[in-house]
Amino acid sequence: MMRTRPLKVALLGCGVVGSEVARIMTTHADDLAQRIGAPVELAGVAVRRPSKVREGIDPALVTTDATALVKRGDIDVVVEVIGGIEPARSLITTAFEHGASVVSANKALLAQDGAALHAAAEEHGRDLYYEAAVAGAIPLIRPLRESLAGDKVNRVLGIVNGTTNFILDKMDSTGAGYQEALDEATALGYAEADPTADVEGFDAAAKAAILAGIAFHTRVRLDDVYREGMTEVTAADFRSAKEMGCTIKLLAICERARDGASVTARVHPAMIPLSHPLASVRGAYNAVFVESDAAGQLMFYGPGAGGSPTASAVLGDLVAVCRNKLNGATGPGESAYAALPVSPMGDVVTRYHISLDVADKPGVLAQVATVFAEHGVSIDTVRQQGKDGEASLVVVTHRALDAALTGTVEALRKLDTVRGVASIMRVEGE
Amino acid sequence: MMRTRPLKVALLGCGVVGSEVARIMTTHADDLAQRIGAPVELAGVAVRRPSKVREGIDPALVTTDATALVKRGDIDVVVEVIGGIEPARSLITTAFEHGASVVSANKALLAQDGAALHAAAEEHGRDLYYEAAVAGAIPLIRPLRESLAGDKVNRVLGIVNGTTNFILDKMDSTGAGYQEALDEATALGYAEADPTADVEGFDAAAKAAILAGIAFHTRVRLDDVYREGMTEVTAADFRSAKEMGCTIKLLAICERARDGASVTARVHPAMIPLSHPLASVRGAYNAVFVESDAAGQLMFYGPGAGGSPTASAVLGDLVAVCRNKLNGATGPGESAYAALPVSPMGDVVTRYHISLDVADKPGVLAQVATVFAEHGVSIDTVRQQGKDGEASLVVVTHRALDAALTGTVEALRKLDTVRGVASIMRVEGE
Ligand SMILES: NC(=O)c1ccc[n+]([C@@H]2O[C@H](COP(=O)([O-])OP(=O)(O)OC[C@H]3O[C@@H](n4cnc5c(N)ncnc54)[C@H](OP(=O)(O)O)[C@@H]3O)[C@@H](O)[C@H]2O)c1
Ligand SMILES: NC(=O)c1ccc[n+]([C@@H]2O[C@H](COP(=O)([O-])OP(=O)(O)OC[C@H]3O[C@@H](n4cnc5c(N)ncnc54)[C@H](OP(=O)(O)O)[C@@H]3O)[C@@H](O)[C@H]2O)c1
Repeated sequence: MMRTRPLKVALLGCGVVGSEVARIMTTHADDLAQRIGAPVELAGVAVRRPSKVREGIDPALVTTDATALVKRGDIDVVVEVIGGIEPARSLITTAFEHGASVVSANKALLAQDGAALHAAAEEHGRDLYYEAAVAGAIPLIRPLRESLAGDKVNRVLGIVNGTTNFILDKMDSTGAGYQEALDEATALGYAEADPTADVEGFDAAAKAAILAGIAFHTRVRLDDVYREGMTEVTAADFRSAKEMGCTIKLLAICERARDGASVTARVHPAMIPLSHPLASVRGAYNAVFVESDAAGQLMFYGPGAGGSPTASAVLGDLVAVCRNKLNGATGPGESAYAALPVSPMGDVVTRYHISLDVADKPGVLAQVATVFAEHGVSIDTVRQQGKDGEASLVVVTHRALDAALTGTVEALRKLDTVRGVASIMRVEGE
Repeated sequence: MMRTRPLKVALLGCGVVGSEVARIMTTHADDLAQRIGAPVELAGVAVRRPSKVREGIDPALVTTDATALVKRGDIDVVVEVIGGIEPARSLITTAFEHGASVVSANKALLAQDGAALHAAAEEHGRDLYYEAAVAGAIPLIRPLRESLAGDKVNRVLGIVNGTTNFILDKMDSTGAGYQEALDEATALGYAEADPTADVEGFDAAAKAAILAGIAFHTRVRLDDVYREGMTEVTAADFRSAKEMGCTIKLLAICERARDGASVTARVHPAMIPLSHPLASVRGAYNAVFVESDAAGQLMFYGPGAGGSPTASAVLGDLVAVCRNKLNGATGPGESAYAALPVSPMGDVVTRYHISLDVADKPGVLAQVATVFAEHGVSIDTVRQQGKDGEASLVVVTHRALDAALTGTVEALRKLDTVRGVASIMRVEGE
């Protein structure tokens, strides 16, 4: 049964993602109508620069007054692909107030204000969907929120930023340093002119907050996410990783504590074993590994960004939201009933790989080992290399609290036989 | 807002999967209630052997009269984990007639009678969900049906049977023959006493029919699926595969023809390059690779069977179906509007790896090459090995119609210089 009155869609933003959303809405109009049960009509397109030529977009639909568009009152769904906090946030809120549901790809906004936006959606009985906000085309939010709704997720371990994975993969495969690999990523269009959001882990942290919130049915704010970028990863770190049968990835890790009473979320570079499914995620691809009580280990893999992959996710949400509208229903909203406390980084249990430059004299190892013991950190392996009065010591610990591990490193720095801490890297995924 | 009147669930079958469903419903009762918005109550459990002790199941709930249970009239959701065609089919139909929605893990039934069951669900305004029927715990049906609802899927390439993947992985890693690897799979509980459904590809074919139907919005019957088992794969085939930088997997392949006007579905062993993400799927794990217009290449990976992984998928569906019920809505039903014709195996475009035993005399290669040319099949590589008047010829073709390739092989068998066709294997995933 096909309804003939079309559902009206307002597209806010028509850049990399928005232009692809508009293109697919046009080229796949018949399929979308069949899958939704009613045709969908592009009712307006809000942009910043109205005079820019936009292929396939009727110029009569283009406006710079996004607010007026969402206030029209006849809009069924607003697709927000402007990005950033404002005006996106106000536009989404206004959309709910005027009866529209919202599909967004805006990870920054969702990570910062997800709870308030969900509350606004619920207040007005509307949907807020954002599959595209995490890992682009990869179905992840729907599987976590719906497929695993009867399971208990314990851990989410993800490569959720394509730029940094491209850089790290390049460093791994060619032996290049960070700057050289970044330059190549920039030249190939994988990194933006200002790569800060990617390489400093801000983008991944936003996604970690969103994923942790959904996985643990708990509100996780962006500030709750521990974050370390990957600008200090060196070619030497990759050599160390290889010696351990590992590679290095920038990981977003969301974990439930063993006692189940709290959760943590963090982003940092880490060594992972080559045998781990995430180790073979190449180039700008993303992948997310999920561990749950009943399902066990699942992995979701695919392109984490790009106009058309991201548009695929937006369109999937658009179809769902339109169906809900026709059903007079809404999909699953925010689920934060568990309200678990989010613990700080110090409470995370992890392992450290530590490279120390030390004096090449007897007793150094004993001194270093004593510091570990004093902090209750047990050592898995030590490798000692001496050359010309200088020596290096590579220590890999057993699992311990991050607070104990950082405490150990601080104390090591104070030893006069320790000339410097050459690198520290967490070891994950074992 | 929590509703206090519980939703009533009838569990049909309490074996490997059903007992885990019951266990999770009990241990996770509070979480399920929060996620659904109402408590769920196990209202009855139908089994064959009522006197068997079933841990954690109130004996008062156990019955052998499954029909009476689904006819009670107060059941909101029927979970069918009996398996097989009858009585499962009649019970599901009866459930719809008595107002219940249905969650099933029954691939055999869905592949054979999916259309009729969907029609019955729709007629009564109920849901039919079956995430667990394909690839156990891996969210696959929901992503294909919902996340990719705005995209166009062109290809689904999957390892969807854990038993055969375990056997093939064993053969690959140890050089074992088929029988030896099967014996080990049986001893470890990965293969059933009668492994026919797995090793002859019947199980995978059922899943291929279900996946193709959803991916292409087209009814694909079990009979439409071309099927070849993997009992004839030899250690020699693995050596040939290795020489080509490949491994061998039993693949379920659903494809849209290049012109978009038809689809195919098939199950057979095939060589795939080691660089393909499916090549590294180890042991009894499953994985499904999906290619679509906008999203590009996605992969979903996880445990394809086992009581608790399968129960995870059943529970996810149970939550969704219960939410729909509370919303007074139904989820997406069958989508078969595209109604594309399903082409036979001969129309598939693939490549062959052919090993021939030939007479070791001049002119044989020319004769063989002529046969390929006459069938319009172009040769990619030939490798010739001679020993004691006997020789072998390994030919890898370029892409051609399967009909032309089988025609070529038939003609080769008739050449008197060809002593025998030692093996034929398709090459996929490039
Ligand atoms: N690109 C990706 O691969 C990707 C992947 C996942 C998620 N996302 C998310 O998708 C969103 C959009 O990203 P994008 O890459 O498409 O960005 P983009 O290419 O920069 O496009 C932004 C669009 O928004 C319009 N715009 C900016 N300010 C506006 C305003 N005040 N009022 C109306 N329109 C305004 C711009 O207009 P003009 O065209 O006139 O400049 C442009 O069309 C972001 O939230 C991003 O995080 C992107
Ligand atoms: N096992 C897996 O890993 C897996 C994975 C994916 C999908 N599945 C699917 O899940 C379904 C169940 O598989 P399973 O492995 O759990 O099977 P199972 O262990 O053989 O359990 C079957 C259950 O059904 C009951 N039963 C059989 N005939 C019945 C009848 N006429 N009336 C009422 N109850 C009856 C049996 O009762 P008794 O206990 O009294 O014998 C038993 O409890 C099948 O469709 C299968 O394809 C299984």
